[in-house]
Amino acid sequence: MSRVDVSSLRTAREALRDTAPLVHCLTNTVVQTITANALLAVGAAPAMVDDPAEAGEFAAVASAVLVNVGTVSSRTADAMRLAARAAGEAGTPWVLDPVAVGGLAFRTALAAELVELRPTVVRGNASEVLALAGAGSGGRGVDSTADPDDAVEVAASLARRTGGVVAVSGPVDVVTDGERTVRVGGGSVLLTRTTGAGCALGALTAAYVAATGDPLLGTVAAHAHVALAAEVAADLADGPGTFAPQWLDALDALDGEALTRADLRTA
Amino acid sequence: MSRVDVSSLRTAREALRDTAPLVHCLTNTVVQTITANALLAVGAAPAMVDDPAEAGEFAAVASAVLVNVGTVSSRTADAMRLAARAAGEAGTPWVLDPVAVGGLAFRTALAAELVELRPTVVRGNASEVLALAGAGSGGRGVDSTADPDDAVEVAASLARRTGGVVAVSGPVDVVTDGERTVRVGGGSVLLTRTTGAGCALGALTAAYVAATGDPLLGTVAAHAHVALAAEVAADLADGPGTFAPQWLDALDALDGEALTRADLRTA
Amino acid sequence: MSRVDVSSLRTAREALRDTAPLVHCLTNTVVQTITANALLAVGAAPAMVDDPAEAGEFAAVASAVLVNVGTVSSRTADAMRLAARAAGEAGTPWVLDPVAVGGLAFRTALAAELVELRPTVVRGNASEVLALAGAGSGGRGVDSTADPDDAVEVAASLARRTGGVVAVSGPVDVVTDGERTVRVGGGSVLLTRTTGAGCALGALTAAYVAATGDPLLGTVAAHAHVALAAEVAADLADGPGTFAPQWLDALDALDGEALTRADLRTA
Repeated sequence: MSRVDVSSLRTAREALRDTAPLVHCLTNTVVQTITANALLAVGAAPAMVDDPAEAGEFAAVASAVLVNVGTVSSRTADAMRLAARAAGEAGTPWVLDPVAVGGLAFRTALAAELVELRPTVVRGNASEVLALAGAGSGGRGVDSTADPDDAVEVAASLARRTGGVVAVSGPVDVVTDGERTVRVGGGSVLLTRTTGAGCALGALTAAYVAATGDPLLGTVAAHAHVALAAEVAADLADGPGTFAPQWLDALDALDGEALTRADLRTA
Repeated sequence: MSRVDVSSLRTAREALRDTAPLVHCLTNTVVQTITANALLAVGAAPAMVDDPAEAGEFAAVASAVLVNVGTVSSRTADAMRLAARAAGEAGTPWVLDPVAVGGLAFRTALAAELVELRPTVVRGNASEVLALAGAGSGGRGVDSTADPDDAVEVAASLARRTGGVVAVSGPVDVVTDGERTVRVGGGSVLLTRTTGAGCALGALTAAYVAATGDPLLGTVAAHAHVALAAEVAADLADGPGTFAPQWLDALDALDGEALTRADLRTA
Repeated sequence: MSRVDVSSLRTAREALRDTAPLVHCLTNTVVQTITANALLAVGAAPAMVDDPAEAGEFAAVASAVLVNVGTVSSRTADAMRLAARAAGEAGTPWVLDPVAVGGLAFRTALAAELVELRPTVVRGNASEVLALAGAGSGGRGVDSTADPDDAVEVAASLARRTGGVVAVSGPVDVVTDGERTVRVGGGSVLLTRTTGAGCALGALTAAYVAATGDPLLGTVAAHAHVALAAEVAADLADGPGTFAPQWLDALDALDGEALTRADLRTA
């Protein structure tokens, strides 16, 4: 079992730059731009192919796949099913981001179906993870009404069920593979005031898991990278508008050495 | 009948921050990101759910709904019908933004149908409002070829027909409930050089109307907030690219006191 | 036959500002925002109408049309066919951007069909142009794995087949009408780290070709304008995040005189 500590984050960052994974994103149309730019900033390659005519074919050749149900339709739901299946068959890591699951019947049923395909990583806020695990009724739109710490046991149980990793975003992020739990502190409240920062984190998680071949380490590294970059950006920004470009600059600038300064707490 | 003056704008701004309304946006894919970021900047919560499978269900629980036909398709047209009906049945305020109506048959027919559902607010440029009211043939793409002042009588007549408010954007914005007319001056030409600034104004109008419970005051407050923030941003920006992040910062920073400096002209 | 030299770029820039062409973009949802903002920055008017219900009607009245298959679906593929046909019938210039063609069967077949409609300009990276011409199997996602210089002969042959212009983007761009070849140097590697910069170049090409009435000159002018603005922005930016707004500012600021400093190499 691999170590997950600040020193291994350095290796993960270097692996990401060296391998430049191609991340196939089936994600919501609100956040496609910042997601693509965040992937480019850290040295990965984004591609957004979200039609059933192409999604399975592309997922089979990508380094990693992101499935985010934020603006799902019947058409893109089919594409997500095909991509998740193709990723599973190819042994390609894929991340499920259950945006607003719990509050809406269509996407809640879809997410329940997708989770049976055993995503390598589930990333969401506490309300979404609780709802996905059948233990809550969802938040308020895309906002969580639950606390990450309340979701820890449910997240660990969900991780054991999928055989993967579950990450719960919040002021302190919780990442668990069902046995080990790592908390990632730091970050900035401005992340919650920038549309797509959480969704981009899902894409960076996919990239890091592909680069490291280690779902727990890769997920923790993505969360640490996002949090540290947010701290740098918050110092330079005058508000939520100038924060976003600064955050992308900081995602780019942070190297392996910088990632060793992450606030990791291993339980 | 409520007052609409600079002092009531202060109250409106405070109500917006205190209530953080959840605004359900069915809007065009070009402007979803800046619309979500503008809502977050002023303290509202955005959610973009635009498929018929979910739009009615979500509109019924949102604080306000925006229907913007900018990149409408047959699929999203159905979602818009469902959302507008659900908002009407729930007594939830909803805003119609008739982007490029008049110039294209499909959306012109759709907008005529939606206006019969009596939107709380219609917001568009002069060409769009004239076309929606059946008094003009539309502009050039998304640009107006008519003057807001030429549209005042038509706007007032349309407001009496819907029982709501009609806002005509231009160098000086005109807001009317069919009896009272308020003009909002100020702003910056850079708003017209930033894609989605007008569409985001529609979303902020929805947020303010939900927060105040007063369609005329809420609509005026949104227009004043956008104009004042544009003036701040124009001073700090070096061009249309750096204007957008500065505008979001200013939307965030402007408080109730700042809004009392709005250029309101009541007829 | 028109001249294409730095002095004619000045005239092209002035024509673009004077005519403010309305560019109808059927493009991928990842890049719609930066594409619209880039068009607004240079003084053109963007409109994104991508449903079969409206695309043909709108293409018939636009100044130019862009067809970019980045996130194509069955629905938008139909809209692209209608728009390309309407543009052809109206004698309106249109640009085909064959994003990721070669690597995916659906879009490769669609692009092969569209190229038979004789686009005024084809703009892509070397892998895409080779694949479109039937001489390669595509790149890695949206990234080229081939060199523009290797694609020159194939591009010229494709230009003779369509009767139009073919542009191959790379560190040095190659633009050819099948007889004359112009290379455009300069630019910045940050363009490749900003999602949509290449796609926006396709839209600016459409705008310039409409403004000049000269496909070769217009295509070269768009590439020179983008490259020069990137150099200005790279000097001012701290990374890929702050580059994008600076690039839009520079697109706006560069006038005809500035364009005469372009790095053109005529063979």
